[in-house]
Amino acid sequence: MSLNIAILTTGDELVNGEMSDTNTARIAQLLGSWGYIVRESRAIGDDEVEIETALKDMSGRRDVIISTGGLGPTDDDLTARIAARAFGRRLVLNEEALAQIRRFFAEKNKEMHPRNEKQALLPQKTVILPNRLGTAPGFHLCHEQCDMFFLPGVPREMVDMLKEQVLPRLHERSGGQAPRQERILKVFGLSEPKVEEHFSQAPLPEGVELAFGVEFPFVYVKLRACGDQAGALLDRAEMHTRKVLQPFVFAVGQETLAGNVARMLTDTGLTLALAESCTGGMISQMLTDIPGASRFLERGGVTYSNAAKQDWLQVSEDILNQEGAVSKACAQAMAQGIRQAAGTDLGLAITGIAGPDGGTPDKPVGTVFLALSTTGEERVQGYRFSGDREQIRHISACMALEWLRRYLGNLY
Amino acid sequence: MSLNIAILTTGDELVNGEMSDTNTARIAQLLGSWGYIVRESRAIGDDEVEIETALKDMSGRRDVIISTGGLGPTDDDLTARIAARAFGRRLVLNEEALAQIRRFFAEKNKEMHPRNEKQALLPQKTVILPNRLGTAPGFHLCHEQCDMFFLPGVPREMVDMLKEQVLPRLHERSGGQAPRQERILKVFGLSEPKVEEHFSQAPLPEGVELAFGVEFPFVYVKLRACGDQAGALLDRAEMHTRKVLQPFVFAVGQETLAGNVARMLTDTGLTLALAESCTGGMISQMLTDIPGASRFLERGGVTYSNAAKQDWLQVSEDILNQEGAVSKACAQAMAQGIRQAAGTDLGLAITGIAGPDGGTPDKPVGTVFLALSTTGEERVQGYRFSGDREQIRHISACMALEWLRRYLGNLY
Repeated sequence: MSLNIAILTTGDELVNGEMSDTNTARIAQLLGSWGYIVRESRAIGDDEVEIETALKDMSGRRDVIISTGGLGPTDDDLTARIAARAFGRRLVLNEEALAQIRRFFAEKNKEMHPRNEKQALLPQKTVILPNRLGTAPGFHLCHEQCDMFFLPGVPREMVDMLKEQVLPRLHERSGGQAPRQERILKVFGLSEPKVEEHFSQAPLPEGVELAFGVEFPFVYVKLRACGDQAGALLDRAEMHTRKVLQPFVFAVGQETLAGNVARMLTDTGLTLALAESCTGGMISQMLTDIPGASRFLERGGVTYSNAAKQDWLQVSEDILNQEGAVSKACAQAMAQGIRQAAGTDLGLAITGIAGPDGGTPDKPVGTVFLALSTTGEERVQGYRFSGDREQIRHISACMALEWLRRYLGNLY
Repeated sequence: MSLNIAILTTGDELVNGEMSDTNTARIAQLLGSWGYIVRESRAIGDDEVEIETALKDMSGRRDVIISTGGLGPTDDDLTARIAARAFGRRLVLNEEALAQIRRFFAEKNKEMHPRNEKQALLPQKTVILPNRLGTAPGFHLCHEQCDMFFLPGVPREMVDMLKEQVLPRLHERSGGQAPRQERILKVFGLSEPKVEEHFSQAPLPEGVELAFGVEFPFVYVKLRACGDQAGALLDRAEMHTRKVLQPFVFAVGQETLAGNVARMLTDTGLTLALAESCTGGMISQMLTDIPGASRFLERGGVTYSNAAKQDWLQVSEDILNQEGAVSKACAQAMAQGIRQAAGTDLGLAITGIAGPDGGTPDKPVGTVFLALSTTGEERVQGYRFSGDREQIRHISACMALEWLRRYLGNLY
């Protein structure tokens, strides 16, 4: 029987519209990846009566409650006091918690404010959940059949404690191991039905379950397995998937497309220059988001005007007049031009019509040409992407990065 | 007495981590801007028993429930049936709803699938809430003291119906008008305490309440007023705020910094070229996000290497050797160089150290130089921003846009 789990997030900012509650999705995602199903999530303002009512109601109907928020040092941080009252415990100074808070300040060479002592006032008979990244210790409280985990609201503290403190206890309550393990392979360039078709022709090893997610413009392939052999099964399933979907898998787990391209450029020592028209600097921006991009990115030109294409990239007037700025010939000339101007190993160029205006019957909105110039070869291709301006720009930039990934990985 | 309002969102994807629930924050924000306070929000999977339990529990404790999701044509869209059962109504074919669905397909010249008829099966004695943007009509059901509004889960349909259908009914139940109106002025370059200080020296007109929000790197000033005169009061308060915080207010309401700069460039007919180093294309990207950017943006150079700065921007070797690429002199030369290369009215340049590496004692991470070159004048300034790489890049790009806004608005 699977655990019946609920989430409770507290904080005025979550219900007055000042902030989006991101903790719920983080918790649900992490638990889901281990096979735990969240039945319900509640967000409630900093109101004692509301929180107490919710805690009592939920504890009677759930096996597990994961609560976030309200553990800070200020007056509107009410969670510990409410939990004590709701479940008939006294609120006491927890020496272990106090020692942890003191240690946190000592390690940071900061003075501890007296009000931080309040964070060690916890319900009696609770187990402390250490917080490595902040001052607020969490706590674990059992009432009748319900395991309640109280975590701080700061996302990175909450996630760390969820992984380190809560998950092992859930595994234990589930009979010693997680119901399920998950590995996510990220796919670009195949639609979800296409991916499914590939798997129907070459099924996964037995015992591995398949699920899909879509995060535009990517498809996420979720491989899931249970039991002692889950890790080994997922290794085999990952190999199988990479072979079946070759060359469309661009990342696994937390990896990103731009991150993998940056790593491959750094590893190979190759240098890159970019010439962007319709993406307007987005490719540069995605690559320079990554620390150390100056090791491989020599320069990028956002050549919006024809003059810029002629001047910086040596695109000929003939091409611009006869083929137009959005054409195969122009993309190719841009890639060659930027590579020569920058003296780099690779020159990548993109030109297209992101809309909403500027389309023609011949070249409708979404028409995009990509070109890559290297020592050994020239490559150019046209696309017709659909979507709004933002989507067309985004998928175009991703396709450009994907070209680099395939070139660098010898995947053509 | 203010209305006691709760939100109920349904859908497996909201609790299994596949999607973040954005509807809750949207609803809370919109209601909050009219002075309505949300007490609680629940997210629940597509489970009949769970949803019915939640609806019954909430309807007994709240004046208003706003529910989203589960109104679609497929089998896991359960909301209408559950609502009927929970509140003892029969589920009947609602002719008005059916006519609306038929009209929606007819207007789109699409054939209606038989399963869409299911969307007209609604509880008896409900009021239809028309959906202008999709197939699923919403409905309004009263049970005892509770007003329940059932809306589709698609965000743009939900928001439109919330504004058009739900808000007027809430105003009515609140005695004919909204408890409060709100206007948000967006501020860049002043911290929240500084903004507060300005207001303490020049208080707002009586009857206007002041609140703050922070969305890095901006401060939001929220002006709020009640009663018949709220609109006029907010007009006066906005004028007052603009005068007191001059020149730091860059936008009001839904306006954005990049959007306002783009509009001012378009209106004045001035042309722009950019030279970016540490921001790596982010400024170009923000401006080209806006349709029609090709009217004012001639080109942008992401000049990461010294060679690119010399070659494209004519920055002298002397400056690079003696002052370095991150210096006042280099920023100024870059701005002049890009303006000349592009032949534009304005040349804007930025160079700095975004980190995490590359800092020195003299020029630590966060050191950024901005320069603007125009027909009439040259301007250059150094900054020390704090934060991580992402924050430093973001605040730098915003400061560059703010320079343009002030120049174009004669606000220096």
